[in-house]
Amino acid sequence: MIRGKFITLEGGEGVGKTTNLAFIKDYLEQRNIPVVVTREPGGTELAEKIRQLLLDSKSEAISEQAELLMMFAARAQHIKHVIEPALAQGNWVLCDRFTDATYAYQGGGRNMKISAIKWLEDFVQGSLKPDLTLLLDAPIEVGIARVRERGALDRFELEKISFFENVRRAYLLQAELYPARIKLIKANQPLIEVQRAISDVIRTLPGLHPLNCSSSSRHGIIK
Amino acid sequence: MIRGKFITLEGGEGVGKTTNLAFIKDYLEQRNIPVVVTREPGGTELAEKIRQLLLDSKSEAISEQAELLMMFAARAQHIKHVIEPALAQGNWVLCDRFTDATYAYQGGGRNMKISAIKWLEDFVQGSLKPDLTLLLDAPIEVGIARVRERGALDRFELEKISFFENVRRAYLLQAELYPARIKLIKANQPLIEVQRAISDVIRTLPGLHPLNCSSSSRHGIIK
Repeated sequence: MIRGKFITLEGGEGVGKTTNLAFIKDYLEQRNIPVVVTREPGGTELAEKIRQLLLDSKSEAISEQAELLMMFAARAQHIKHVIEPALAQGNWVLCDRFTDATYAYQGGGRNMKISAIKWLEDFVQGSLKPDLTLLLDAPIEVGIARVRERGALDRFELEKISFFENVRRAYLLQAELYPARIKLIKANQPLIEVQRAISDVIRTLPGLHPLNCSSSSRHGIIK
Repeated sequence: MIRGKFITLEGGEGVGKTTNLAFIKDYLEQRNIPVVVTREPGGTELAEKIRQLLLDSKSEAISEQAELLMMFAARAQHIKHVIEPALAQGNWVLCDRFTDATYAYQGGGRNMKISAIKWLEDFVQGSLKPDLTLLLDAPIEVGIARVRERGALDRFELEKISFFENVRRAYLLQAELYPARIKLIKANQPLIEVQRAISDVIRTLPGLHPLNCSSSSRHGIIK
């Protein structure tokens, strides 16, 4: 069994992760790739419960250290019970946020020490890294306006503008540090352009058959 | 304001922590010490929710790393919102289990690396250590029999005998490593003897007035 690829989608609030996650899933499935779509924090029953605790805007104030450790606790559970088994079975795993989000939100947003995040990353992930990370980036005003249209805000969405500026800056720094893995996608352009940029990146992945192989006839898709 | 003392009570299943916690609380209050009684995992609203997730015997299998990180997430929250403020206000904090339990259960019981527990201890606690730890120790058969009489067992209480043997061994190792802080109390003797041993240790703590000072007249206690 050939191990699947691990793709993560990253970005701040309201940059269009949900829409583009569905687009990538379709794009891969049309090419006969078995895809497991998941998200962080979450992805298992226990990790989703931890997510609820983390996002609950009515909870007691959560200490920065507790928040960071809960993120990695949920991640450890998610890797062991979902991500690793799926990859080992040859599925591609498409994950809505992963550890780059921890560097962005807890590192950039909360100003937690990068060395602590790094230690926890190594402890929980070992050698596991995404094969590809798509970072959707837009000026924060664009994303915040979109999120506020949606209604009730979670504990992170209620943060101040400066928090989101720091999150965006930390995300961009990650992209600078890991240019081979993290591909920056401009999210403040027409959706068709965003998705063209995404598919331009994804089609470079080894293991991806072009659409005019078996899958096109099977799915009856013409491009 | 003179900072309070931080006392932790440790021990395996069924060694009598609950009974002796109440005894120590009374002992201190009779000597005019303001006492905050708390427990781990737990002690705050969020930390108690994490405790529920950790103890739930019906949950999905929890990875060892997730368990360890959840323990320290709850601890970070507990220290910030309960333990540190209480000590700073001059209260003595009496805690049912603390980090020695992590060395015993996750280190000894689950065989997690001690270096990882040590890193997390430093990350979450900084310089905070208990001023005194009372380790109630008994052969595991004694404790397990008591716990089984109580009825429904939690996720830890359902472990195998070898798990509890490893927990006990790790607790005893902690006591050997930190003899100035950790005092071993034999728990398989008549309760009056256990409590005599506990009070012999506690009365050595600086800051504790003997009973025949102001407190005895105030509370009308004759010894």
